[in-house]
Amino acid sequence: MRTLRVIGIGAGDPEHITIQGIRALNETDVFFVIEKGAQDLVALRREITARYVEPGRPHRIVEIPDPRRDRTAQAYTEAVEEWRARRADLWAAALMTELAEGESGAFLVWGDPSLYDSTIAVVEDIVARGGVELRYEVIPGISAIHALTARHRVPLNRVGGAVQITTGRRLAEGFPAEADDVVVMLDAHCSFKRVVDEDLDIYWGAYLGTPDEILVSGPLREVAEEIELQRAEARKQKGWIMDTYLLRRR
Amino acid sequence: MRTLRVIGIGAGDPEHITIQGIRALNETDVFFVIEKGAQDLVALRREITARYVEPGRPHRIVEIPDPRRDRTAQAYTEAVEEWRARRADLWAAALMTELAEGESGAFLVWGDPSLYDSTIAVVEDIVARGGVELRYEVIPGISAIHALTARHRVPLNRVGGAVQITTGRRLAEGFPAEADDVVVMLDAHCSFKRVVDEDLDIYWGAYLGTPDEILVSGPLREVAEEIELQRAEARKQKGWIMDTYLLRRR
Repeated sequence: MRTLRVIGIGAGDPEHITIQGIRALNETDVFFVIEKGAQDLVALRREITARYVEPGRPHRIVEIPDPRRDRTAQAYTEAVEEWRARRADLWAAALMTELAEGESGAFLVWGDPSLYDSTIAVVEDIVARGGVELRYEVIPGISAIHALTARHRVPLNRVGGAVQITTGRRLAEGFPAEADDVVVMLDAHCSFKRVVDEDLDIYWGAYLGTPDEILVSGPLREVAEEIELQRAEARKQKGWIMDTYLLRRR
Repeated sequence: MRTLRVIGIGAGDPEHITIQGIRALNETDVFFVIEKGAQDLVALRREITARYVEPGRPHRIVEIPDPRRDRTAQAYTEAVEEWRARRADLWAAALMTELAEGESGAFLVWGDPSLYDSTIAVVEDIVARGGVELRYEVIPGISAIHALTARHRVPLNRVGGAVQITTGRRLAEGFPAEADDVVVMLDAHCSFKRVVDEDLDIYWGAYLGTPDEILVSGPLREVAEEIELQRAEARKQKGWIMDTYLLRRR
């Protein structure tokens, strides 16, 4: 029997880690690392293990190559699912060869593992195939949503109200009718511009919890352009951006 | 200038606290406590300060009485807002009399302060009145939503999908049309029974993260009755219940 933990490490601030997360880091023999993109994020993850894994606690780091995803595909869901299946192949192989019987492995996930992250789905896929006997658990983390509202010091919901968590792609089709408060994630195209004529406030944040954090809030109509400019500028300077925002109907 | 921190302490497990939260606890001179209801929750909060505030760090605990809320009122939002205004009166008075210039106060909030909690709104109200000069910040916490999905080891969203966070009151009016995944909070009436004919799976959890945790999941049609029975039984035995659930369209 092998153990695998999917550990939420928070939204960017190394101090977002929980005591439960630190305990899990210190029960890990093998950290599986899927590196893609931003070097800053690689560095931040290294900082977390360096800071919280007790000196002398032996552990190995195993890198797993990430298959390329077809981002040109029209069928978004199918492209993601096909990519996940190839990930499951690679991960299952790595678990079998790199994790000995009785050892514990871990994946560190930004934010919370339940939110727009595929780690749990890939692990479920591996378990369903039945090739590896695996005990696994999920450690919750501070999600980008809660980091965003904390930095802007705003509630997520209004009294008795509903909140919709959605994607830039979906927002571009129109502001939801069933919620007056909408959190948008995975938006590479400033889709808030598509709803700029609605009577909305926006609370936007990028690189939340890091020294590069940018926060902008105000009436969407008045600050949309500023956010678009700041976003483009920051992305150009750093080479990557992670941002999210809350839209609030007045 | 006084400092006030609203600190998310997680969804029930004392190990949900973050390093940022522990740092904030140790910068606090006065813990403001609004006690209402469950003695277990009072004990859990005491456990958190006992466990994480360093020995020798001087601090005081100040209890603020909580005004009664009119739960018979037809106008839910107005009743909540009227109650919040009375809370703001009491809190502002406590801040003025109990917190000296240069001192730091804190409110400890279950889960994350942005989610179905009124602390931020009450503090904003106090700041808006202008009577107290206050620097305040919000420390995000592990919310019941992320605790729920972690314990059930399920993602919150599906690929590219939207998630709605809503209340039992709203769910009773019908399953949302704009999201296939719905988290329900503040449901005292097992409102999932109202949508039992939809083709849904449910992931239900009570007392999440505590030794009394109960988890039930499965096709809603098959487990709805079991959840209702377990909920009633647990509530009777302990005198209170905190539960939440995810409904997922197949």
